[in-house]
Amino acid sequence: MSDARIKVGVVGAGGRMGRTVAAAVDTDPALDLVAAVDPHAAGVELFGTTVAASVDALAEAGAEVVVDFTVAPAARDTLPWLAAHGMHAVVGTTGFSDDDLEAFRSAFTTSSCLIASNFSISAVLMMRFAELAAPWFETAEIIELHHDQKIDAPSGTAITTAQRMQAARAGAAGEWPADPTEHEVYAGARGGAGPGGIRVHSVRMRGMVAHQEVILGALGQTLTLRQDSYDRSSYMPGVVLACKHVAEHPGLTLGLDALLGV
Amino acid sequence: MSDARIKVGVVGAGGRMGRTVAAAVDTDPALDLVAAVDPHAAGVELFGTTVAASVDALAEAGAEVVVDFTVAPAARDTLPWLAAHGMHAVVGTTGFSDDDLEAFRSAFTTSSCLIASNFSISAVLMMRFAELAAPWFETAEIIELHHDQKIDAPSGTAITTAQRMQAARAGAAGEWPADPTEHEVYAGARGGAGPGGIRVHSVRMRGMVAHQEVILGALGQTLTLRQDSYDRSSYMPGVVLACKHVAEHPGLTLGLDALLGV
Amino acid sequence: MSDARIKVGVVGAGGRMGRTVAAAVDTDPALDLVAAVDPHAAGVELFGTTVAASVDALAEAGAEVVVDFTVAPAARDTLPWLAAHGMHAVVGTTGFSDDDLEAFRSAFTTSSCLIASNFSISAVLMMRFAELAAPWFETAEIIELHHDQKIDAPSGTAITTAQRMQAARAGAAGEWPADPTEHEVYAGARGGAGPGGIRVHSVRMRGMVAHQEVILGALGQTLTLRQDSYDRSSYMPGVVLACKHVAEHPGLTLGLDALLGV
Amino acid sequence: MSDARIKVGVVGAGGRMGRTVAAAVDTDPALDLVAAVDPHAAGVELFGTTVAASVDALAEAGAEVVVDFTVAPAARDTLPWLAAHGMHAVVGTTGFSDDDLEAFRSAFTTSSCLIASNFSISAVLMMRFAELAAPWFETAEIIELHHDQKIDAPSGTAITTAQRMQAARAGAAGEWPADPTEHEVYAGARGGAGPGGIRVHSVRMRGMVAHQEVILGALGQTLTLRQDSYDRSSYMPGVVLACKHVAEHPGLTLGLDALLGV
Repeated sequence: MSDARIKVGVVGAGGRMGRTVAAAVDTDPALDLVAAVDPHAAGVELFGTTVAASVDALAEAGAEVVVDFTVAPAARDTLPWLAAHGMHAVVGTTGFSDDDLEAFRSAFTTSSCLIASNFSISAVLMMRFAELAAPWFETAEIIELHHDQKIDAPSGTAITTAQRMQAARAGAAGEWPADPTEHEVYAGARGGAGPGGIRVHSVRMRGMVAHQEVILGALGQTLTLRQDSYDRSSYMPGVVLACKHVAEHPGLTLGLDALLGV
Repeated sequence: MSDARIKVGVVGAGGRMGRTVAAAVDTDPALDLVAAVDPHAAGVELFGTTVAASVDALAEAGAEVVVDFTVAPAARDTLPWLAAHGMHAVVGTTGFSDDDLEAFRSAFTTSSCLIASNFSISAVLMMRFAELAAPWFETAEIIELHHDQKIDAPSGTAITTAQRMQAARAGAAGEWPADPTEHEVYAGARGGAGPGGIRVHSVRMRGMVAHQEVILGALGQTLTLRQDSYDRSSYMPGVVLACKHVAEHPGLTLGLDALLGV
Repeated sequence: MSDARIKVGVVGAGGRMGRTVAAAVDTDPALDLVAAVDPHAAGVELFGTTVAASVDALAEAGAEVVVDFTVAPAARDTLPWLAAHGMHAVVGTTGFSDDDLEAFRSAFTTSSCLIASNFSISAVLMMRFAELAAPWFETAEIIELHHDQKIDAPSGTAITTAQRMQAARAGAAGEWPADPTEHEVYAGARGGAGPGGIRVHSVRMRGMVAHQEVILGALGQTLTLRQDSYDRSSYMPGVVLACKHVAEHPGLTLGLDALLGV
Repeated sequence: MSDARIKVGVVGAGGRMGRTVAAAVDTDPALDLVAAVDPHAAGVELFGTTVAASVDALAEAGAEVVVDFTVAPAARDTLPWLAAHGMHAVVGTTGFSDDDLEAFRSAFTTSSCLIASNFSISAVLMMRFAELAAPWFETAEIIELHHDQKIDAPSGTAITTAQRMQAARAGAAGEWPADPTEHEVYAGARGGAGPGGIRVHSVRMRGMVAHQEVILGALGQTLTLRQDSYDRSSYMPGVVLACKHVAEHPGLTLGLDALLGV
């Protein structure tokens, strides 16, 4: 009986994110963890697989999809190698330049490469829906809520959301109305002004993890898009989904949106 | 100096909805209320326009877009007349048969006709986003909350939402998991089972108007799509938007979604 | 058969708030609108009562409870008169000095007088619960959301809430921890700092009316207290409740809290 | 220099809850973990303390407050021993009979004993506030949301909340109005009917942990009390708080409410 499961390899398998990815792949009934690579963890047993020092182990194991959560200098070598071996790549590594992306685009001619900075399905959809809704409302604001150890405000997700909403808005619906506030009793009460003047509010709260709410309003109605991350495992469903669907998107794809069909 | 405003006519202008539409058109700076028609209210003054008894007034006034919130028997006459006169139609009237729709499709060859049962932009987007998100989550439930005079449960919007989510799900992601509940201490606590087993919960609350929340969950994360209607005026932004954009969609269009580009 | 309903009079009955109060009293089955007073609206018919020019009409009608939503100069005459006639007073008028309150306290020796600036039961309870909860959490922030015509930020309710939370906190639990933010990318993102550093965020949104959320967090948990006002009628349940219960609280009472037993 | 920290002992220190309590005590700057007892884990090192087999270790270490998360048969011996030695007890053990409680009441004459089934501060306050608010609103419903492995519905917390709200209501404000629903399209959509007819809705959602929302409505307004537990650590702040304040409540106290002053 042949195994219909997709053969998955993991590079950077010794790191925190790599180990979590390996666990998620191992758990999913449609995926088969066939190889794990990490020069810094060679020889370690990981879910029945021995971590190898070199990417050659991926070819030997017949990996079809390879997940890469490492660092840009390493991935600059790994990704073209994957392309040359006809393997698909699912990449969470960040820090690539435009030149890097161009090189990857040239390399992946027969297989697929997805590069995404955010694998949280709920966060990706929230941002996309906010962008789709932005042209049709009179007002919009963003509230992001995080644990009270976070030192920057607003969050990167909130900034990206505001940028995408404003870009969608600018092309279709013109300016947002001016802020009505004439008297700000506590300075900053109206939040931080992002692109196009979209107000962003950052809450820092003991007990919380990572949450964001986009509120859009028109006469007599509001639409609220809210995303809650309860722990770090929230990246895994997106990685697993990418392993299953990356092959359907030949060449280079940026962002999980395309795989979600939105 | 020419007037760049879109010339809008309203039929059924004497009814509650018709008057509200006329007010919204009159208020919007990009629209010009040029004619109002209602055989039952002929002669009444409405925002500087005298209500006429016959649709001929629409042609005389040079209406470009005509809004029809009447009843199916009347609209069956009005819509082909609008098509024959090259006017665009924005229609909130309900009760059309498939044959009616086929006839309208044949009639509107040069101008546009939008027929929608729901002009609440926030509700339309909530339903569409719920449909787009449904394939990508493990679980989903709907909570709808209405004023405590509502006699049916769930609301029509909640039922339509569940149907659309299930249709999107069935085509892409297979069955939802079985309900884990083994012991329901209060019968009905787990809500009503809609299509595909999607649970729908109906809250009836003094003070509320019309609200709905769709919650979708995956490992470590949830996405919540919430729509709040605060009063009946929530239909108006959708009607105004349709008046502005219907001309861009030649022929017959069903549902506001197409005009919203989602 | 005797009428067990409480006999209620309304002063300032010709004003917008006075008329709304009269309607609410007229509608409630346990209350009987027996007199309406307003020198500026004398002779007007109001729910079967003719508005009188002088408070003497209250005595003639045998009013037991009198509702006063007027202005401080008028109420300074009315309230002692009510006390002298053994009537209970429910007062929404604002602008009294400490001397005024002392005078009212001396006057109401046999009957009761409730003076409150906020008759929204949900808002009053939200503030009280926030005050009760404040000592027991590590962090707390306030988000208030209002329609986009509001020119001041934060709202008066939010400021009062923060003040009361801080006073409760100071007496029991010491300082709130310092804000963790080191890098505020959009100035003001972290909101306005109220008493004790409690952050207050003001959202201005088309479609909304008046809403407030107090979030309190401790390890692994949050408590959220949210109040929604959907329209101006939200004051009426508190006024009706006060008419029914003011007699149980002899002398002068400040704030609806006492009547709610919290 | 004397140590002003409260000396705390933990019994059942080898169990999952006991270890977590020991960690929380060890972490808090105002508490000093001086002894740990568990016959099944004697000799184990726990935060610098060696687990002892017998409660004698508590006396030897001079424990002032002892936390007991064990089982009723064991606690029936431990608690009177603590009372006899003048130690205060913080007890999360369940399954006591009325006779047990009477015995504990008689035993704790000089020191204090708090027994609570719920140490989540946010959940305890949510229930208490729901009880305080129940008499003043026209309608109320409960929505509880839990992870999708939970096999009973509604949750015990939701049932307790409904019971307490109904008890508070019955004594003050009479019956809730009848459910307006005449046509339930999906059976169970209106939720389960708890005491007094309070509707309870149970959502089961992948990604969620334990959450509950109580919504109360009156004319033009709603009050929402929401509690979110993000992980099991949510019990710890309540246990730590009890260690600090139990001494202020001599004799037997049932429930964390008393310590919270609500």
